[in-house]
Amino acid sequence: MSNIADVCLSPDLIHLFSLKNKVVVVIDIFRATSVMCTALNHGISEIIPISDLSELNKFDTDDFLIAAERDGKIVQGFKFGNSPLTYLNRPEIEGKKLVLTTTNGTRAINLCKVDAGDIIIASFLNITAVVNFLKNKEKDVVVLCSGWKGQISLEDTLFAGCILDKLIQVGFLSESDSSFLSRQLFNDSKTNLIKFALQSSHKKRTENLGIDKDLRFCLQLDKFDNVPIYKNGSVVLH
Amino acid sequence: MSNIADVCLSPDLIHLFSLKNKVVVVIDIFRATSVMCTALNHGISEIIPISDLSELNKFDTDDFLIAAERDGKIVQGFKFGNSPLTYLNRPEIEGKKLVLTTTNGTRAINLCKVDAGDIIIASFLNITAVVNFLKNKEKDVVVLCSGWKGQISLEDTLFAGCILDKLIQVGFLSESDSSFLSRQLFNDSKTNLIKFALQSSHKKRTENLGIDKDLRFCLQLDKFDNVPIYKNGSVVLH
Repeated sequence: MSNIADVCLSPDLIHLFSLKNKVVVVIDIFRATSVMCTALNHGISEIIPISDLSELNKFDTDDFLIAAERDGKIVQGFKFGNSPLTYLNRPEIEGKKLVLTTTNGTRAINLCKVDAGDIIIASFLNITAVVNFLKNKEKDVVVLCSGWKGQISLEDTLFAGCILDKLIQVGFLSESDSSFLSRQLFNDSKTNLIKFALQSSHKKRTENLGIDKDLRFCLQLDKFDNVPIYKNGSVVLH
Repeated sequence: MSNIADVCLSPDLIHLFSLKNKVVVVIDIFRATSVMCTALNHGISEIIPISDLSELNKFDTDDFLIAAERDGKIVQGFKFGNSPLTYLNRPEIEGKKLVLTTTNGTRAINLCKVDAGDIIIASFLNITAVVNFLKNKEKDVVVLCSGWKGQISLEDTLFAGCILDKLIQVGFLSESDSSFLSRQLFNDSKTNLIKFALQSSHKKRTENLGIDKDLRFCLQLDKFDNVPIYKNGSVVLH
């Protein structure tokens, strides 16, 4: 009996999915889950995903690095936002805990944390590691796209199509129309993923924010060979 | 200043759209809005869309033809369901009012009726008439896909891509990621729309119900040259 892999293209559709005993793969390609993969591979020991800005003041800045993003920008008063590049080559973050709140990605994690069997974090940066993890897990899978304020996003849909293709190749069944259209879209983008993905509304929305380098960084395949997993309120490397 | 055309790929995402002063184009290709176009062009004078089966007993069968479908099948006890073919060449339905309840399409109409500026009914069967109507109307447009119990459906997404392409050609702007992915999908299907659309989960779901002829009927272009419009609780030809 094959396991089933499906995709939820917006957090606002998550009520349509039963998550019990399933692995939920949370993605927010531009940029929260790409940031999580990067930060955990560059010294951060764990990440606490927070939905509301108001919760940030519970955390002491002596013990935690705090990163806050809304609408693509660092929230005023904070040093770190949602750029994966910020976490590269920074010896001072080694071993630190990161408290992270973003427009979409951290909300998606918190939406499914009550019902899901397991929650893992994926991006293009660790896609092969995630596929291997899911293959060994032998459970049904729901890929949860974070989107943009509830709207479906191109880059998350492309990633969903890419990982569902790979999961089908290792024996999963994936027959929903959302799966079909994600995979069709990914296959259209195959010859030039970067050019295709940069047609997204996120790119247009953030054009003046100078984060083009970030977006290109997020579209690299398999820079990291591990899987962040959400456990007891924190994301840590598996 | 160009008008904007967008698409809502599931009724469960309709809260993300402002509908005020806009034209909402409701579609349920397999089969409710295809049925509405067909019935109104074959004798039915008006259609009353109902969400709940329990409301049907308010209508006297002497005055109304009653059609009820759930999960692709005619509801037990009713003669008419959700097949467009049922309404062809039936002199006895001439001038009759039709009360219709279906799994998805009638729900979509009732979900947007409070907020929308105008509500019209579209299908492949009347797509050119709808495009001309919208071009003359000069208002922003939201194409509302009925989907399947909240899930995104392939055939509605294909239709959305098709009509958004046509609306862009007559001067509308359409820049959301949902619009992009619908149009990309429709363009993939162009050389063989029927074969492409019949990969949908609706087709698989209803394989044993013998409605293949219905689905092929619903994929014909421009059989009808008019636009059903929702007004005061009824759908009538504009």
